[in-house]
Amino acid sequence: MQTPTSIYLDHAATTPLRDEARAAMLPFLGERFANASSLYASAREARKAIDEARERVAAAVGARPEEVVFTSGGTEADNLAVKGAAWHAREQGRDAVVVSAIEHHAVLDPARWLARQGFRVTEVPVDEHGSVRLEALGRAVDARTALVSVMWANNEVGTIQPVAECARIARSAGALFHSDAVQALPWILVDAAVADLTSLSAHKLGGPKGVGALIVRRGVKIQALMHGGGQERGLRSGTYNVAGIAGFGAAAEATVSRRDTISARVAALRDSLARLLGERITGISVNGHPTERLPNSLSLCIEGVEAESLILLLDAAGIAASSGSACTSGSSELSHVLLAMGVPRRLATGSLRLTPGAGTTVEEIETAAGRIAEAVRTLRR
Amino acid sequence: MQTPTSIYLDHAATTPLRDEARAAMLPFLGERFANASSLYASAREARKAIDEARERVAAAVGARPEEVVFTSGGTEADNLAVKGAAWHAREQGRDAVVVSAIEHHAVLDPARWLARQGFRVTEVPVDEHGSVRLEALGRAVDARTALVSVMWANNEVGTIQPVAECARIARSAGALFHSDAVQALPWILVDAAVADLTSLSAHKLGGPKGVGALIVRRGVKIQALMHGGGQERGLRSGTYNVAGIAGFGAAAEATVSRRDTISARVAALRDSLARLLGERITGISVNGHPTERLPNSLSLCIEGVEAESLILLLDAAGIAASSGSACTSGSSELSHVLLAMGVPRRLATGSLRLTPGAGTTVEEIETAAGRIAEAVRTLRR
Repeated sequence: MQTPTSIYLDHAATTPLRDEARAAMLPFLGERFANASSLYASAREARKAIDEARERVAAAVGARPEEVVFTSGGTEADNLAVKGAAWHAREQGRDAVVVSAIEHHAVLDPARWLARQGFRVTEVPVDEHGSVRLEALGRAVDARTALVSVMWANNEVGTIQPVAECARIARSAGALFHSDAVQALPWILVDAAVADLTSLSAHKLGGPKGVGALIVRRGVKIQALMHGGGQERGLRSGTYNVAGIAGFGAAAEATVSRRDTISARVAALRDSLARLLGERITGISVNGHPTERLPNSLSLCIEGVEAESLILLLDAAGIAASSGSACTSGSSELSHVLLAMGVPRRLATGSLRLTPGAGTTVEEIETAAGRIAEAVRTLRR
Repeated sequence: MQTPTSIYLDHAATTPLRDEARAAMLPFLGERFANASSLYASAREARKAIDEARERVAAAVGARPEEVVFTSGGTEADNLAVKGAAWHAREQGRDAVVVSAIEHHAVLDPARWLARQGFRVTEVPVDEHGSVRLEALGRAVDARTALVSVMWANNEVGTIQPVAECARIARSAGALFHSDAVQALPWILVDAAVADLTSLSAHKLGGPKGVGALIVRRGVKIQALMHGGGQERGLRSGTYNVAGIAGFGAAAEATVSRRDTISARVAALRDSLARLLGERITGISVNGHPTERLPNSLSLCIEGVEAESLILLLDAAGIAASSGSACTSGSSELSHVLLAMGVPRRLATGSLRLTPGAGTTVEEIETAAGRIAEAVRTLRR
């Protein structure tokens, strides 16, 4: 039996490495292997590559280069932001953290861990579209609040959050505002000036896995998560991953330079996929905000279908898709995002996340719609 | 003016990427880009590569694959060990941490940070060779001790520590024993069964930067440093750096398979370099243990010379060397390791660390000796 041609519709999980990123990395996986913290010429070359990447990442979010703290990825950036801000604030007499109920686990779980350390943690509800409820956020924030964390756009349903309003609410109480912009940056404008702390990840925008950044706005004080050699002004110790950082810089620059064009094209593909599936599958509904949504995000609930079975059947049919977040796809828990939006458990069981990307074609969308409809028919039989 | 041929004598700072490691990485920087936590076929391929690397890293230290927790490097492994063990133990009523005075900053600084969080932290002295004083360690450990951390071999002077005795002392008080084996693994046998927690780094043994591991022995309980998607049995969340991990596995296997031969050859080169320098430079002394020392480690104090000036002059002469740890070489602090060993400040100012590697040749050693002697003469004029 022939394997069907493979169609990748899981760009929210990770993306192919861009050619620009690979080209930026390879010298540092070869001759240019020096430790960027050393004093000699080859080390200065590595440092120069890091400086250049720092400028590129900063430019991608309108930040200053010295505000970029390179990390091992989005999860580390989130942990550094949440724990680092909380630890610092506790020494200033603030001991509360406020997060939205639909944060990525890399924000939610650090907050819950802080609760075990004596912090007061509030999880603010969202509406049926997955937008954080601003009145509830306003009620949750007070003079004890160290940090408010609301993601720029949700990774499962794509809803873009009212981050400017959230930031205003946080600051009105003297709290810091953090936003996980890992999913947003590849698709929409992320202005790091909106938040005090902004998390980024390379591999969601064509960069390598294992590298990310936290943008720490000038004057914002947090504690480090990792102590040691004192890299990144003491905020993130550890030998620089020179190749990874160089790849991140190249990918960020390339992504942002063509983002509007790509976003418009991918949104059209996404809408076409939604329409085709709506025509062919009964009992299907789209999750997330009808308009304030990432252009590549299509989260569906399909009645009478169990997500994991569908994903595996789609895999056999050559479609790479997800039931929600890749990070927890190993677990059989229902999505905390869908449940927070009020999606009934019966429907949340049948969630399917389809996220086309820059390389997705019209033909792939049409083929995928047919295969998905076929898989749903098979499962319902 | 012609640039002199470059001689790299800073393998303790970092090492060239091995061909085996690069070959293992490249597929995952190309077609095989899937997120290892996803459910479809390409993700399973990534997971298979991680499993294989896990087996290789485990085999390199005599551990079980399921005891390997991949991290972003040695610094993260150290931070995870020290903080993770301390946080867990505090919930069990233990609130003290004991470290040697010559630990890498990635252990020392987490311990000092824990002191700010209310932990009792003891730094145990070393003797003039840089070996931890076992009687002092014995006195420092008690029923409050959560963790004892003593490195396998020191990164600045190469002294191999009596880790088995340290582990016995720790365990006699019911404390966990952690050892940073980042510098040791490339050169000597590291048996992870000796410690409860063992830190490893890929880039010190021909693997890529940005990846390492903490070996967590079966039954040992620690808390996570990074929370999120729940990778690595919840001990280290974050999207897998598949390429980096695959490269680590290949480098670890290749290193250990030829370690005895390479170590013997490099020790001979190192001894020859020490002899040549001793013949040509007056007022020179070797730091570290005379016999219990890493085979590639040559730490010197040179009277009447300022380390940073020497490093820069050597750089101009085509020699890549260090005054101590690369991680803090940007700072002008004197080495805490040399000071702990009782080296007078006047001498510690003139420290030079030369660390040849597997690729170093006899000719390079002879040329380097001449250039170093010349640089010292220049500085003394």
